[in-house]
Amino acid sequence: MFSEIHLPKGFKCAGISAGIKASGVKDMALILSDAPAAAAGVFTTNQVCAAPVKLCRAHLEHGVARAIVMNSGIANACTGAEGLVMAKNMAAETAKMIDCEVQEIFVCSTGKIGPQLPLAKIIPGIGKLFESALIENVQQTAEAMMTTDTRPKVAMAELQIDGRQVKIVGFAKGAGMIEPNMATMLSYITTDAAVDRRTWQAALKSAVDRSFNRISVDGDQSTNDTVLALANGESGIHVLDENSKDWNAFYRALEKVCFELAMMIVHDGEGADKFVTVQVKGAVSDEEADLAARAVANSLLNKTAWAGTYPDWGRIMDSIGYSKAKVTEELVDIFYDETQAVAGGCRSGVPQEDLIKVVSQTDFAINIDLNIANGEAVVYTCNCTEEYVRINY
Amino acid sequence: MFSEIHLPKGFKCAGISAGIKASGVKDMALILSDAPAAAAGVFTTNQVCAAPVKLCRAHLEHGVARAIVMNSGIANACTGAEGLVMAKNMAAETAKMIDCEVQEIFVCSTGKIGPQLPLAKIIPGIGKLFESALIENVQQTAEAMMTTDTRPKVAMAELQIDGRQVKIVGFAKGAGMIEPNMATMLSYITTDAAVDRRTWQAALKSAVDRSFNRISVDGDQSTNDTVLALANGESGIHVLDENSKDWNAFYRALEKVCFELAMMIVHDGEGADKFVTVQVKGAVSDEEADLAARAVANSLLNKTAWAGTYPDWGRIMDSIGYSKAKVTEELVDIFYDETQAVAGGCRSGVPQEDLIKVVSQTDFAINIDLNIANGEAVVYTCNCTEEYVRINY
Repeated sequence: MFSEIHLPKGFKCAGISAGIKASGVKDMALILSDAPAAAAGVFTTNQVCAAPVKLCRAHLEHGVARAIVMNSGIANACTGAEGLVMAKNMAAETAKMIDCEVQEIFVCSTGKIGPQLPLAKIIPGIGKLFESALIENVQQTAEAMMTTDTRPKVAMAELQIDGRQVKIVGFAKGAGMIEPNMATMLSYITTDAAVDRRTWQAALKSAVDRSFNRISVDGDQSTNDTVLALANGESGIHVLDENSKDWNAFYRALEKVCFELAMMIVHDGEGADKFVTVQVKGAVSDEEADLAARAVANSLLNKTAWAGTYPDWGRIMDSIGYSKAKVTEELVDIFYDETQAVAGGCRSGVPQEDLIKVVSQTDFAINIDLNIANGEAVVYTCNCTEEYVRINY
Repeated sequence: MFSEIHLPKGFKCAGISAGIKASGVKDMALILSDAPAAAAGVFTTNQVCAAPVKLCRAHLEHGVARAIVMNSGIANACTGAEGLVMAKNMAAETAKMIDCEVQEIFVCSTGKIGPQLPLAKIIPGIGKLFESALIENVQQTAEAMMTTDTRPKVAMAELQIDGRQVKIVGFAKGAGMIEPNMATMLSYITTDAAVDRRTWQAALKSAVDRSFNRISVDGDQSTNDTVLALANGESGIHVLDENSKDWNAFYRALEKVCFELAMMIVHDGEGADKFVTVQVKGAVSDEEADLAARAVANSLLNKTAWAGTYPDWGRIMDSIGYSKAKVTEELVDIFYDETQAVAGGCRSGVPQEDLIKVVSQTDFAINIDLNIANGEAVVYTCNCTEEYVRINY
């Protein structure tokens, strides 16, 4: 699937089975940079956060990374002081293999909340990862990150800077517990560009806000969300910052990779078979447009209506009404794709069949105009089927 | 079912089929007071609200009621100026039958958002309601209020005041779109007590806050929620106010009726087969405890875990973590009924079978202690099954 994609220069990766998951599928991954890379990170805003998130936040102060090591199957969340020791052990063992500072190792876990990590499997797993690390192991690495995901998620961008080829390759996992401001979602971005550390962190934050933070599967936000980005400079270009003439092109490539990964996550939403874009404009502010869009995207009644191919615009009116965005009922227009369902807060009179045609598609948009001011926002979401309930039993 | 329950003195009611619902089941109800009754009302806080809600709010200024007339099947919401005319016509026709001021008539609708009311069915329906109005029509009235409800909802309390019998009888409907601050939920409270109008309104607000506003089925709040309370004084007692020696006993009876009706709604949650009490204590304030309890009660991941008899306390930790309540991970204790699952933010070590035993019950509690301060709150909710998704297709 991604066998054609190779990592940027100076990166290696691996995905192996360490026996953490009872099923024997891949459950550990490594991303390794030959040279120290500028590190950036964005983490869950959940007050309850996993041990590896705490460790990554601390290591990010150092700002330099040599490797990301991760496991799936167990989240190492709600594991107390013992869990933090486990995460530190994972980092220490990896640092030993590279012979680098322990702060240069970033650790992630995803899976079940509660149990402690089985260190007796993790430590040999790290050895196995280093043995198998290669530039072309992209597919295996993405597979090892998966939990309820049905497919691995990788995106790539390439551009020319200073006459040299620069590459960005990103990995992601996530299918449920997905709600803006991230949720059981991990993503790793690698690039052989050289980027000023402060610029890199600001760029990642901005790209995440416009991609991963614009998606919602079920409105639940996880304890482990992490996006890490490593820029190792191995392409040989000069160090980029916001004043570089190539900065905009590079930032757009970064945002494109993040956006593609985010869309892969929504498309792989647990049990979902429809992709829905909720666009709100005409709000008092962008922030209020966002509140209205999220209320629509997270409403279980909307999600089940979409699952049932039922164009129930009344439920959409209801959702925006209880959102914290200012809404003047008489001004609201709602369109399913380009077909207007609501005009001035009332039904437009368009035949129901035309609306059913839109929601029958596997990919459609709900376009809402509050007609008050100029605030706008978009959220990408999916429907909620009986299958979602079964998956989360 | 409720054939033994008769209305308080001086009230009559009726439930009939006016042909609004295609199925031919009962779809209009009337509650009629012989004498002008002190009126109190609490309404949806949704910015998008139905025409009858707007009309009731205006009529409540008058403070006196002779009748409540309602239909199910069509919500008369998002119906613009025409919808308001329809609601006014319903009130005017009812006032004509009684020969009273139109402000003394309260109108409610529940059902599908969008379509206009079929006045050609509603007007004859009102005539039929007056023909059939009787003190013992409690069952029929409750049935006519139903939409996705599987059973009618009536509660009663009786007490002695001044040596006279005082009665409170309440009706309710609601099964989905139920989230605190009400949601497609209608309730009518009748009493033959005499109550000072201002006291009556304050008492209703307080009782609603402690009953209907403490339940959540799916986190969606409707456009039509209305609780109306009529006190006609026909028991012959003196007028009660907060200084009356019998006030506390009377208020407790009112709250009991509201609470019983609210519990009936959660037990009848769309597709639900488990009743879950979420109790939070130890929060910074009661308000924060409420935020934490609602985050747990409204999480789709928790609701589906309960449906699957899966005691996933990690998801509960996750929910309180992203709630707006202050949470210190290391202090959190969580109990399933009295069985401790989480101690100091980590698993307690109690055998999983003991927790499964608790969530296998059709009625259990999640007790959370944040161990920070003394704020507490309780929310009553239900699980989310595949059936919920099917109902809302």
